[in-house]
Amino acid sequence: MTHKISYKLGDLAKLINAKLEGDDQCEIHGLGTLANASQGQLSFLSNSAYIDQLKDSRASAIIVEARFADACPANCLVSDQPYVSYALASRLFDTAALDKSGVHPSACIAEGVKIPETSYVGPNVVIEAGAVIGAHVVIEANSILGEGVRIGDHSRIQAGVMLYHNVKLGQRVIIHSGAVIGADGFGFAFDGTRSIKIHQLGGVTIGDDVEIGAGSTIDRGAIDDTIIEQGVKIDNQVQIGHNCIIGEHTVICGCTAIAGSVTIGKYCIMGGASGAVGHITIADKVQVSAMSLVSKSIDKPGMYSSGTGHMKTTDWKRNIVRFQQLDDIAKRLKKIENSTDKD
Amino acid sequence: MTHKISYKLGDLAKLINAKLEGDDQCEIHGLGTLANASQGQLSFLSNSAYIDQLKDSRASAIIVEARFADACPANCLVSDQPYVSYALASRLFDTAALDKSGVHPSACIAEGVKIPETSYVGPNVVIEAGAVIGAHVVIEANSILGEGVRIGDHSRIQAGVMLYHNVKLGQRVIIHSGAVIGADGFGFAFDGTRSIKIHQLGGVTIGDDVEIGAGSTIDRGAIDDTIIEQGVKIDNQVQIGHNCIIGEHTVICGCTAIAGSVTIGKYCIMGGASGAVGHITIADKVQVSAMSLVSKSIDKPGMYSSGTGHMKTTDWKRNIVRFQQLDDIAKRLKKIENSTDKD
Amino acid sequence: MTHKISYKLGDLAKLINAKLEGDDQCEIHGLGTLANASQGQLSFLSNSAYIDQLKDSRASAIIVEARFADACPANCLVSDQPYVSYALASRLFDTAALDKSGVHPSACIAEGVKIPETSYVGPNVVIEAGAVIGAHVVIEANSILGEGVRIGDHSRIQAGVMLYHNVKLGQRVIIHSGAVIGADGFGFAFDGTRSIKIHQLGGVTIGDDVEIGAGSTIDRGAIDDTIIEQGVKIDNQVQIGHNCIIGEHTVICGCTAIAGSVTIGKYCIMGGASGAVGHITIADKVQVSAMSLVSKSIDKPGMYSSGTGHMKTTDWKRNIVRFQQLDDIAKRLKKIENSTDKD
Repeated sequence: MTHKISYKLGDLAKLINAKLEGDDQCEIHGLGTLANASQGQLSFLSNSAYIDQLKDSRASAIIVEARFADACPANCLVSDQPYVSYALASRLFDTAALDKSGVHPSACIAEGVKIPETSYVGPNVVIEAGAVIGAHVVIEANSILGEGVRIGDHSRIQAGVMLYHNVKLGQRVIIHSGAVIGADGFGFAFDGTRSIKIHQLGGVTIGDDVEIGAGSTIDRGAIDDTIIEQGVKIDNQVQIGHNCIIGEHTVICGCTAIAGSVTIGKYCIMGGASGAVGHITIADKVQVSAMSLVSKSIDKPGMYSSGTGHMKTTDWKRNIVRFQQLDDIAKRLKKIENSTDKD
Repeated sequence: MTHKISYKLGDLAKLINAKLEGDDQCEIHGLGTLANASQGQLSFLSNSAYIDQLKDSRASAIIVEARFADACPANCLVSDQPYVSYALASRLFDTAALDKSGVHPSACIAEGVKIPETSYVGPNVVIEAGAVIGAHVVIEANSILGEGVRIGDHSRIQAGVMLYHNVKLGQRVIIHSGAVIGADGFGFAFDGTRSIKIHQLGGVTIGDDVEIGAGSTIDRGAIDDTIIEQGVKIDNQVQIGHNCIIGEHTVICGCTAIAGSVTIGKYCIMGGASGAVGHITIADKVQVSAMSLVSKSIDKPGMYSSGTGHMKTTDWKRNIVRFQQLDDIAKRLKKIENSTDKD
Repeated sequence: MTHKISYKLGDLAKLINAKLEGDDQCEIHGLGTLANASQGQLSFLSNSAYIDQLKDSRASAIIVEARFADACPANCLVSDQPYVSYALASRLFDTAALDKSGVHPSACIAEGVKIPETSYVGPNVVIEAGAVIGAHVVIEANSILGEGVRIGDHSRIQAGVMLYHNVKLGQRVIIHSGAVIGADGFGFAFDGTRSIKIHQLGGVTIGDDVEIGAGSTIDRGAIDDTIIEQGVKIDNQVQIGHNCIIGEHTVICGCTAIAGSVTIGKYCIMGGASGAVGHITIADKVQVSAMSLVSKSIDKPGMYSSGTGHMKTTDWKRNIVRFQQLDDIAKRLKKIENSTDKD
């Protein structure tokens, strides 16, 4: 199965906010890395660490900053932000992002739900009563939309996504396969003998331009909604507990675990497999490194980390014994310092 | 899509084990937090930290302990355990927990499998041969029940749940979307060149009143069953390896990873993103804090932790260098102490 | 639902590379542990820690090393590698691994896609245009194969697996329920205000004899493919970022998070819930212990760890305060050493 996509370089330059120095009739039919691109492909230099690969690249056109234009061996697309221009170009050649429309006959759509003519509903999709589907929406096979789900225009629901009742998505939202939005938050009242379920009556509200990765889970709120603000990007296998509020344009890398009722600010970056304990607040522009746990609120922007760094297991075994003596070590040191001071 | 649910306060009080001080004819149609509740809603005060919100709440009724009854500005529901009463009330207003029945025509049910009249099987559900479905069971869209699966009465299988062959659930079990129960345990015999699969011939047995979160996975046993005892609550994206035994009423928070053949006692709490290495035993009433790894058996109740706590990354970078010198630091300190002792 | 499987011991011995000392006509119909096996079952002793259980076992036959043959109370299957022989035996008794064939009428298969007569396509499976399905392939219910997916002979796709377009599997690959292969890698270009999606144009290539656990996610490459080499075994809920290369026969335990563009060598073992930051290289035969983070490249084989080990939370709280003073502690110690040296 092939979808041929091709652009004349002159047109492409305009679409990616770059200035062409070269042949505007050159046909570009795909993207390649500097090292591997072949004739007819577009490449890019966004990190000067790869400057040595520039001169030998066989790409037909290369996106570069102005300062590297002279060194460019091919048609040159000069951009202030080559990585952004590359991002814009990648969209042009993504056959999977093409519009589609129509409703597959095996889809099971509740009475009264309207599917706009510009939208697509794939095989075995189930859409329950009261759902509202925007224009130019793609809902791939086997996805499930519970009662009252709302999907904004130009959103894309990949195959096998599960949206519980009353989940609301903004426009241009992308959700990848296996993601579950709106499952019950984890709340129980312990009566001394057993845990009694607190039914989760809130919903999940997701803003415009949010992307959610494969297998990620975002729980519905206990009473009020869980909120993911516009522009947030969430990688695979991320867990976001009930009643969290994730601020605009924050990026959450894969396998991160955010407990319930956490408020994260805008433009934060949670590194891969990081975590946050419940009921804390993280300020705007905080970056948390991989596999670090945020164990209390952070009120200032900046970079934060936890963990020990890896080492040879033999060394580590000795060091963790000492870690468990660390308070004792510190006190003994203080004692020596005190006795030395007296000397 | 709306389901109107409403209770007279007099009836509601009985259902949640509270004593009404106020108007038993008052109509309650939903729940709200103290701060956000509006006319006609029920609220609760379970944590005295929120006492200041009590007097300004616009809720029509509030669940409180007896000592706060006088301060309650609305109809008052006095309870010994307000949080438990709130949990009971949350069930009453959960439209998603309503009973449903019938078999969707698109469901694919093997010959010989009987669906009780009180149970529901949604669109595209697949139920294979030999499955046994209890009464008042709800199986939502696109879920899959392998050969010989057994589901106890009043259990609820949310959309897109995958139960492999011979998985057995007790009564009142809830399983959320994307959960996979009974996939093969991770077992291989290395022959010096390659890993040879050990086929997993055991099953998974899940007790009454267990809840399992979205995207969680519980592997089938190698030979004997993996066992989740009654009352266990498992959050989202938890992994439980083959042949684990999780004791009654234990709570496992999101993203926790339990390796194979781990036995966890009763009434334990595994914090979010915590872990346990394989083939260990954890006593009853052990609590493990978030992102802590249990690296050997724990034989006494209590709270356990690992990790370093988070700090500014600049400080952290200096400290982790020292962590790797920690055994050396401890020895040097000892040497000084010895020389000082001699003085 | 029962599938009766039974072997005469003489035949079974040959199938598992063991030498029979005993009755070759004895019927074996299943496997059991030494402690729990009953009449008619086969057991094994692969770890001498269990030698005490040998003499009391009621198994009808036991796989042992030659040195334990005399102590074996039943028919004896002597093997150089009892654990490998047990693995081979486990396959014989796995009813779930039996061949099946045929296409369920509810499957939705694009025009032009051929399903070999020896292969099976279950209910509600969706196979899009250009897919190529090998012989003796099993695709269980509700799985989704995007455009151009290729599945090698004898592969088994469990229920509810999602393969995005252009994912390529080798032969004898097993993928468990809820796994998502080929979702978009997590790539964005930040333009100063918002994150612009980098469309992921590469694919995923998976070699022969790979197994991928339930709920695991392997992202498609940005431009080139993400590559999983032959013989790799991946447990549940593992995340592998775009453009990773995982070397032959490497084993990745549950809940491990591998960031993008990581190259892992051959015969490595990543422990449960371990992690690796992006753009690093890990040498062959590296073992990483549970919940350890590999934070920079490792160029030598061996065992590596991070973390602190668990302790009582009360002790831990004191020690993590000291951890945050560790650089200061080390400097103060050095100062004392210097002053002592001068004395």
